[in-house]
Amino acid sequence: MISDRQNIQVSVAIVGGGLSGMSAAWELYQAGIDSLVVLEANDRIGGRTFNQLHPKIGYVEMGGTWVGRTQTAVLDLARQLGVATKQGKVDGATIYGYQGIWTMHEDNPSESATPAQKDFAQVMAKFEQLSQNVPLDAPWNTPNAETLDSISAGEWIDRNTETIEARAWMAGSIRQGIAGDPHQVSMLFVLYFMANAGFFDLRETAEDYRLVGGSHSLTLKIAEHLGDRVWLNTRVREISHGDRVRLVTKRGVIQADYAIVAMMPKDAGKIHFDPPLPAIHQQLISEWQQMSWIKFFCLYPRPLWWGKAASGHYYSMDTEAEVFDVSPDDGSYGLLIGFFEPKYSNLSEVERRKCAIQTVTDMFGIAGAAPEEYFEIDYTQQSWTSGCVAALPPGLLTQAGAALNEPVGRIYWAGTERSTRWINYMDGAVRSGQHAARQILEQLI
Amino acid sequence: MISDRQNIQVSVAIVGGGLSGMSAAWELYQAGIDSLVVLEANDRIGGRTFNQLHPKIGYVEMGGTWVGRTQTAVLDLARQLGVATKQGKVDGATIYGYQGIWTMHEDNPSESATPAQKDFAQVMAKFEQLSQNVPLDAPWNTPNAETLDSISAGEWIDRNTETIEARAWMAGSIRQGIAGDPHQVSMLFVLYFMANAGFFDLRETAEDYRLVGGSHSLTLKIAEHLGDRVWLNTRVREISHGDRVRLVTKRGVIQADYAIVAMMPKDAGKIHFDPPLPAIHQQLISEWQQMSWIKFFCLYPRPLWWGKAASGHYYSMDTEAEVFDVSPDDGSYGLLIGFFEPKYSNLSEVERRKCAIQTVTDMFGIAGAAPEEYFEIDYTQQSWTSGCVAALPPGLLTQAGAALNEPVGRIYWAGTERSTRWINYMDGAVRSGQHAARQILEQLI
Repeated sequence: MISDRQNIQVSVAIVGGGLSGMSAAWELYQAGIDSLVVLEANDRIGGRTFNQLHPKIGYVEMGGTWVGRTQTAVLDLARQLGVATKQGKVDGATIYGYQGIWTMHEDNPSESATPAQKDFAQVMAKFEQLSQNVPLDAPWNTPNAETLDSISAGEWIDRNTETIEARAWMAGSIRQGIAGDPHQVSMLFVLYFMANAGFFDLRETAEDYRLVGGSHSLTLKIAEHLGDRVWLNTRVREISHGDRVRLVTKRGVIQADYAIVAMMPKDAGKIHFDPPLPAIHQQLISEWQQMSWIKFFCLYPRPLWWGKAASGHYYSMDTEAEVFDVSPDDGSYGLLIGFFEPKYSNLSEVERRKCAIQTVTDMFGIAGAAPEEYFEIDYTQQSWTSGCVAALPPGLLTQAGAALNEPVGRIYWAGTERSTRWINYMDGAVRSGQHAARQILEQLI
Repeated sequence: MISDRQNIQVSVAIVGGGLSGMSAAWELYQAGIDSLVVLEANDRIGGRTFNQLHPKIGYVEMGGTWVGRTQTAVLDLARQLGVATKQGKVDGATIYGYQGIWTMHEDNPSESATPAQKDFAQVMAKFEQLSQNVPLDAPWNTPNAETLDSISAGEWIDRNTETIEARAWMAGSIRQGIAGDPHQVSMLFVLYFMANAGFFDLRETAEDYRLVGGSHSLTLKIAEHLGDRVWLNTRVREISHGDRVRLVTKRGVIQADYAIVAMMPKDAGKIHFDPPLPAIHQQLISEWQQMSWIKFFCLYPRPLWWGKAASGHYYSMDTEAEVFDVSPDDGSYGLLIGFFEPKYSNLSEVERRKCAIQTVTDMFGIAGAAPEEYFEIDYTQQSWTSGCVAALPPGLLTQAGAALNEPVGRIYWAGTERSTRWINYMDGAVRSGQHAARQILEQLI
């Protein structure tokens, strides 16, 4: 290992080879900055966009899966890199299951709608309306920001609904959209998320396409261009900063004019900064939640439920699991993916398997009852990525939001969590990486 | 540095040389376990209990300062180590300042009390009553735990008070007692804290004595006994665990039968665990807040306010600063210490100085107006301790509380945050260290 040590100097060092870090590197490289290095702790690039090979069906996407039609940053990047798109399969409204009954939400419920459906529609309309007042580049300037940030979305919903069902549906919507417990997530953050990423319109705009070859293709293609500028198995454990930036790894010390930290905020907390970061940056990094859902896969010889089910997207309030149909167009096999809440991490894989099959069987009847294969990814048990997507607790956005995109000296920030558009999506990752790269390019020119 | 590398094997490795880690080491050492090592990242031991030398007054205590009469673990340890105690100076009820008016809280307000005083008394009584139902070893089993953990203390107070003043006083009490923003702290956690550490009785039981030579004396005395078993400047950056525990530092790899991680939960998040910790342990570590107050010192030639002020403990709702009188008994100099909320970290030291003097002058008039010297410690800017004391956001105690004192294989946990008595105090640090040591001794015997 010692012989492998390289102390190098570069113009820009990028910490993290996920989609945002690789997008930043690509942006810089295309602008003529070839003195750069991407430092990735894991033994692969891609972060939360990666394929796993599968003997029967080629590969499965373990992370990001869909692209929406207005997600132009990731669509443009795919086009530029020669990654084709195909149609996504989510083509109906979300269907909510509650105590064994499956209901489709309608934005404009008819006169014959139940009181619960009307209640759900009115509270959603309130969310939509409030979210229109959130400035994307400074959500802390929303009217009544302090008040909205002082309460949880769950608390706000409790006050603004009258039926238990509407509360459960709203909680389900927030769980699936934000990946957070409504009582632990700031109301202001939920409104910001809606404004930023069109939450509640999710089915219309975020799942229109999929990427041929999987979402991993994006970073793999960029890596081909960057060659040996990408270092795997290279955890950055310390960053000293001042006139230059000094990044300490087991493979050597990298001296850089600028650094981009392109990680989940929480993961950046594992790096020792010297001197310590300003307080609001520490607060943002440390209090960003880590809501790790478990993604599961049920594989079938055929999509036996086709022609019977009304939608490609289901949410069960009973098992609190979300299910999508991602079978290929030719129906050559059937594949359902789903998400379990973080608390399922405390169960065994055997118990979760049982739960997944129960949910799928509730949805599709006998057609879902016997998957050929069940497998899963638990993001809490990934070594270098602490969680899939995450939300903000009350207070953080107003107190520390200003640190989202503010560099600290020569250290810049990327990661989908910091994007002013499509936060938590692949599109946000691309945008935030490009944004950090452009901030540095302005300094270099 | 390479020549300094030592790969050693020990029975127990302790990560962190703060009061809890050193108490654990001392407990083990006295039980005959001399194959141990304490690994401390900083260039000194003591963690949040340390002295700074001062040319005029000898030293000042930068961290923990008082000991209460029922804090028997730390009192016993002091006696055993030959550290004497002296009387503390906090001898009256807390005086609250709000919009320029200073009011003393009374538990049983007289008939002539203002509506605000009565309101404050009734809501405090409710807190006291609810806190009596919290089982110290399993606060998640409190009646209605889920509900109490789903809302913030601020929210609960808003619902249970009628006057603005009572809300402000309660918020102030929580800020000073828990070091957390009431709207970001779980109501269940506040009740647990009250049951655990007698919050709101703070003035009666937690500030009776001080330690001669400063609180740093405790760990310094233990270090004398342990000799070269204490390694400074030795950050543990990785812990692999299985049949044994493997701790990776720049000075070498330590193989241990058992490890005790004796750090603030948040700081343990900087260590890379392989395999990753179970989800609830990660959640506990990662979501524990980091509420870093700034401790300031105003030094005077004499305690000019003696004989004029009614109490040794003040809280200003206007500047949100808390002030204590820590002058020596002989009045040979005057020393006030105070605490600013985390948001003051965003001001310059010059601005904070102005604010501190304003607060002290509001309290003591001209007697406080001209300190000879102002200095401070900002815990957000300490390299190896991310914050002074901290609280739990809604949801965490019920979801992840079980991880508080549950070992992960051969890894045990210490730190005042995990103590079932006197959490966040020095006494809790000693208790938690002793508890972890005893858990391991049970395995060894």
